[in-house]
Amino acid sequence: MSGGTIYGVGLGPGDPDLMSVRADRLLRSARHVAYFRKAGHVGRARATVDGLLPENAVEFPMEYPVTTEIPLSDPRYNQMLSEFYAGCTEHLRALARAGEDVVVLCEGDPFFYGSFMHLYSRLHGKVPVNVVPAVTGMSGAWTATGTPITWGDDVLTVLMGTLPEDALVRHMTDTDALVVMKIGRNFDKVCRALTRTGLADRAWLVEHAAMPNQSVTPLRDVTSVAAPYFSIILVHGQGRRP
Amino acid sequence: MSGGTIYGVGLGPGDPDLMSVRADRLLRSARHVAYFRKAGHVGRARATVDGLLPENAVEFPMEYPVTTEIPLSDPRYNQMLSEFYAGCTEHLRALARAGEDVVVLCEGDPFFYGSFMHLYSRLHGKVPVNVVPAVTGMSGAWTATGTPITWGDDVLTVLMGTLPEDALVRHMTDTDALVVMKIGRNFDKVCRALTRTGLADRAWLVEHAAMPNQSVTPLRDVTSVAAPYFSIILVHGQGRRP
Repeated sequence: MSGGTIYGVGLGPGDPDLMSVRADRLLRSARHVAYFRKAGHVGRARATVDGLLPENAVEFPMEYPVTTEIPLSDPRYNQMLSEFYAGCTEHLRALARAGEDVVVLCEGDPFFYGSFMHLYSRLHGKVPVNVVPAVTGMSGAWTATGTPITWGDDVLTVLMGTLPEDALVRHMTDTDALVVMKIGRNFDKVCRALTRTGLADRAWLVEHAAMPNQSVTPLRDVTSVAAPYFSIILVHGQGRRP
Repeated sequence: MSGGTIYGVGLGPGDPDLMSVRADRLLRSARHVAYFRKAGHVGRARATVDGLLPENAVEFPMEYPVTTEIPLSDPRYNQMLSEFYAGCTEHLRALARAGEDVVVLCEGDPFFYGSFMHLYSRLHGKVPVNVVPAVTGMSGAWTATGTPITWGDDVLTVLMGTLPEDALVRHMTDTDALVVMKIGRNFDKVCRALTRTGLADRAWLVEHAAMPNQSVTPLRDVTSVAAPYFSIILVHGQGRRP
C-alpha cells in the first residue's frame, strides 16, 4: 500500500487541551479534514477543533442521511447508513490514492463506540489507516465528578442507554462501577433501571463533560425529562482502598 | 484554600506523544514532580516523561514499601500502604501549603484504577487538587490490536485478573466486549476463565501497549506461562454495524 494515509484522530471529550500531542500536531498540519455531522449543524467534532486547522485545509463534512428520524429497527436505517458510509469511504480512498493524507475527526476515542469504525472497517487493508487513541468521553465525565470511578478489584460495566430495560437491569445488578452512555431519549428508561437496581441514589448525570457548559448533577436532583444524547450517567465503584 | 496546586497528571498508555496537550505543558513547566515506583527501579511513570521535565525540577520518588511480597489479604499489607500514602500526602500537602505547585505523574488515567486516587482521597478538600484525564491503558491496547473494541449497543466489561476465577467466569459469561487488566501472576487463572466461557479463541494479549516493545498476540498463540502485570487481555465486541 502506498499513497496518503487516513488518520482517525480521537479528539477526546471536547476540551482541545485534552487532545493528545499527536492529535494536535496532525490537526495543525492537516491538508484534508473530514468529519461527521448532522445536516444543517456545525458538528461537535468540527467545533472542537475550531481555530486549530490551517486556513487552507480542505474540509469534507460527512452529513448523516438519518439520525433519529427512522428507528434503528427499520431495515431502511441500516441500508441508508451503509450507503452513506460507502460513499464517504469512496471519497477518502480516492484522496489517499492520489497521495493525500486525510485527518478524520473523531469525538472521544475512535475505537470506542465511534462512527469512524464504520469507515475504518471499509478502508482497512485498502489504503493506509492510522488510529490515534484519545481520552474517552467517560474519562472526561468521571474526572468531572471529582471522584475516581474504580478502585482495587472493582468491576466496571459500560452500557448503552439504547438497550432494553430488562437488559440494563440485568447488567446493573452485577457490577461495582457503572457507565451508561447514549442517554438522550432513553433517559427515563435508564432511570427506571437504576431505581429497580437500587443504584439511583448513587448515580450522577454528567452533561457536556470537559466543555465550558459542563454540568454534574446527582441523578436524584435532575428535574428535566430528557438529557442530551451525549450525556453520561455514572455510578462510582467503592472497592478496596488502603 | 490557597497556596500551590497538586496536579494529578495522567500520562496515558506510555507513548509521550499520546499525552494530552495540557499534560505536556504542565510537565515542561513543572518545578516539583512526584511519582510512584518500586524501590530500586526507575519507575514506568518517570521513564515515560524522560527528557520532558525542566532540568531544575525537584523530584520526589514515592517508593512502595511492598508490592507483591505480602498477599493482599494480609492485614499488614493494608496497614503498610496506608501509612505509606499518609506519608506521601504529608509531603505533598506541605509543598502546596508553601505555595508550590506539584505535578504527580500517573500512568494511564488517574481516576481509573490508579494509585493517585489514594493520595487524592487524602488531599481533596485540604489543598487544591486538579486531575488531568488521559488515554487509558486499555484504549492503548485496543488501538494496538487494529480492531475496534465496541460497536452499536455492545456491553463492555472491565475485570481485574486479581478476582477469583468463578467471579471472572460469571462476568465473562454476560458481556459483548471484555477487558482484563492486572494480569501478571493471574495469567493462568484468567486463561482458564476465558476457556470455560468459550472466549479464549477470540482473546488477544497486548503487552506494553503504545510502547516501542509493544506486542499483540492471539491468546491461543501465547506460550509463555506469565505475562507482565501491566499487560491487558481483550475480547472485541461484535455489535451492530451498518
